[in-house]
Amino acid sequence: MPKLPTVHDVARVAGVSRQTVSNVLNSPDIVRPDTRERVQRAIETLGYRPHASARRLRTQKSSTIGIRLDPMVDGISGSILDRFLHALTEQADAVGLRILLFTATSPEDEIRQFGRLVDGSDVDAFVLTSTFYGDPRTEWLIDHGQTFVTFGRPWGIDDMNDLRHSWVDVDGRAGVRAATESMLARGFTRVGFLGWPSGSGTGDERAGGWQDAMTAAGLDHDLDRLRENAVDTVAAAREASSRLAGRVGDLEAVVAASDSLALGAVVQTQGGLPVVGFDNTPVSTAMGFSSVDQRLDDVAHAVLELLTDSGADTSRHRLVTPELVVRSSHPPVVPDAS
Amino acid sequence: MPKLPTVHDVARVAGVSRQTVSNVLNSPDIVRPDTRERVQRAIETLGYRPHASARRLRTQKSSTIGIRLDPMVDGISGSILDRFLHALTEQADAVGLRILLFTATSPEDEIRQFGRLVDGSDVDAFVLTSTFYGDPRTEWLIDHGQTFVTFGRPWGIDDMNDLRHSWVDVDGRAGVRAATESMLARGFTRVGFLGWPSGSGTGDERAGGWQDAMTAAGLDHDLDRLRENAVDTVAAAREASSRLAGRVGDLEAVVAASDSLALGAVVQTQGGLPVVGFDNTPVSTAMGFSSVDQRLDDVAHAVLELLTDSGADTSRHRLVTPELVVRSSHPPVVPDAS
Repeated sequence: MPKLPTVHDVARVAGVSRQTVSNVLNSPDIVRPDTRERVQRAIETLGYRPHASARRLRTQKSSTIGIRLDPMVDGISGSILDRFLHALTEQADAVGLRILLFTATSPEDEIRQFGRLVDGSDVDAFVLTSTFYGDPRTEWLIDHGQTFVTFGRPWGIDDMNDLRHSWVDVDGRAGVRAATESMLARGFTRVGFLGWPSGSGTGDERAGGWQDAMTAAGLDHDLDRLRENAVDTVAAAREASSRLAGRVGDLEAVVAASDSLALGAVVQTQGGLPVVGFDNTPVSTAMGFSSVDQRLDDVAHAVLELLTDSGADTSRHRLVTPELVVRSSHPPVVPDAS
Repeated sequence: MPKLPTVHDVARVAGVSRQTVSNVLNSPDIVRPDTRERVQRAIETLGYRPHASARRLRTQKSSTIGIRLDPMVDGISGSILDRFLHALTEQADAVGLRILLFTATSPEDEIRQFGRLVDGSDVDAFVLTSTFYGDPRTEWLIDHGQTFVTFGRPWGIDDMNDLRHSWVDVDGRAGVRAATESMLARGFTRVGFLGWPSGSGTGDERAGGWQDAMTAAGLDHDLDRLRENAVDTVAAAREASSRLAGRVGDLEAVVAASDSLALGAVVQTQGGLPVVGFDNTPVSTAMGFSSVDQRLDDVAHAVLELLTDSGADTSRHRLVTPELVVRSSHPPVVPDAS
């Protein structure tokens, strides 16, 4: 396919920075009128269109989407990206798109792989996962006019609202809020939270959901005492649960940031407390505790809509609301029936 | 790539069945001398070579392997094929091969997909998973001269030893035998087995490993009493464990055909008995019970050796011996430390 003009080309022709081009596209009011006019002229001259390549992808009969397969994460929630890959492959197949897998040892290596795949015309679009603060991959793709969607918000950078950065994410805050509200609705007030150590966007959002629900219920006077942190292992979660139960003798329920943490709480309390996890993994089904489901089918659907520029919603971002799956009919640990 | 002569072409030219060609290649002694000569002449005339395409794959700079992504299996062991896919993608990348994913709704649909991918020159080889009795997919690939390897034995059909059907499988019988022996080595004699209902090749092999170990230890007088079957869910495994413990009051240990069954036994016995599972899933790590690891890195390595016709071993089959991962330092359920 012929090379499409990129935002980089527009910036060069207009003699401005890429950020200014971005501002003209997204927040024209903050750009001086003469600069704005110069950028708009460059856009017209070059025929630059933010998602021309997405439209092209949609009109092709059979196109290929490249996606990096991360190294296997050997935790209980490690299969989430695999479940996303299943959903994406099935839905892509249905619209004539195929998935090409590759691996990379670092973000820089992944960028080299992008270059190789683009040069060889092996793929027509990319899906990125595991986004992080200051991710250099999206900048490269934007600079090179590539069609892409990230599963994950562009944490902490200013293209949060950039039209050229299409992303889909799950609203973890809303999910944990719903989980907490389900415990409050059962009449509990001492609802503890088992979270990850502060500093990850995902973890902080999930903790925020618990805080929101507790605050809305007028129970925000005691939040520090009701919270414990642990890294994402069952062993760490058991220790944290033990500390929490030791400090809050009349603890009534636990909301956890993941199913690994939830499993630790279930095992440590021997099923004596209601526990809600996050990710709705096979373990939550097997052990019978409630969990927040990320609705990965909806995520995959939104990714494909954005990639092919189809669907009624014209925004370039989708925040999927997860769903609380309530389980209570199977107590996790019961006496031997024999 | 030009179309290679297939076994079908050889059969047509020689005026014999495909089975006869297969016999000439694999068991020449059972074929009448004049027929054998006619087939050998056809093979020479056509330049037919059972793994010519595998050799070609190896010499290409960048080739693509097609693999069907099965629908997500929502059980504890459901991630095994995903873990294989990770291992395969990483090792393929290292030798310049890429993985193209597709989906199919049935074996017949998968064969249609093969045809499409071959016609479009989209892939140069296939990896098949989830083989079953009378699998029509391998026959199609052999007939069409395609390079392929199956992860899984060709259960119950006569190309078990066919040079044209390359396969890799894990020796589940050896794995369960090792698991059982580890319990016998601890001095236990009443080692129960939680298996799947009879009739699946995989399940029967695993049960056979337990029988082998018990028989070798002179403990085969009581096998029926020590065995219970359950479908692969934690709930069914809990009921089966309860029946087993009720019948064998002095039960000392449980060996299970899967980690789902093992988890059921651990939960039902509240961690009071040593339990060994199969698949070394994240759940076995998290709960701290021993489990048999399929060594999927070794499986992926063998698949790639067979696909590229490299490596010292000239046989077309590999049976990988799994490895028992022993865990005992973390009792699965302990009293609350608070």
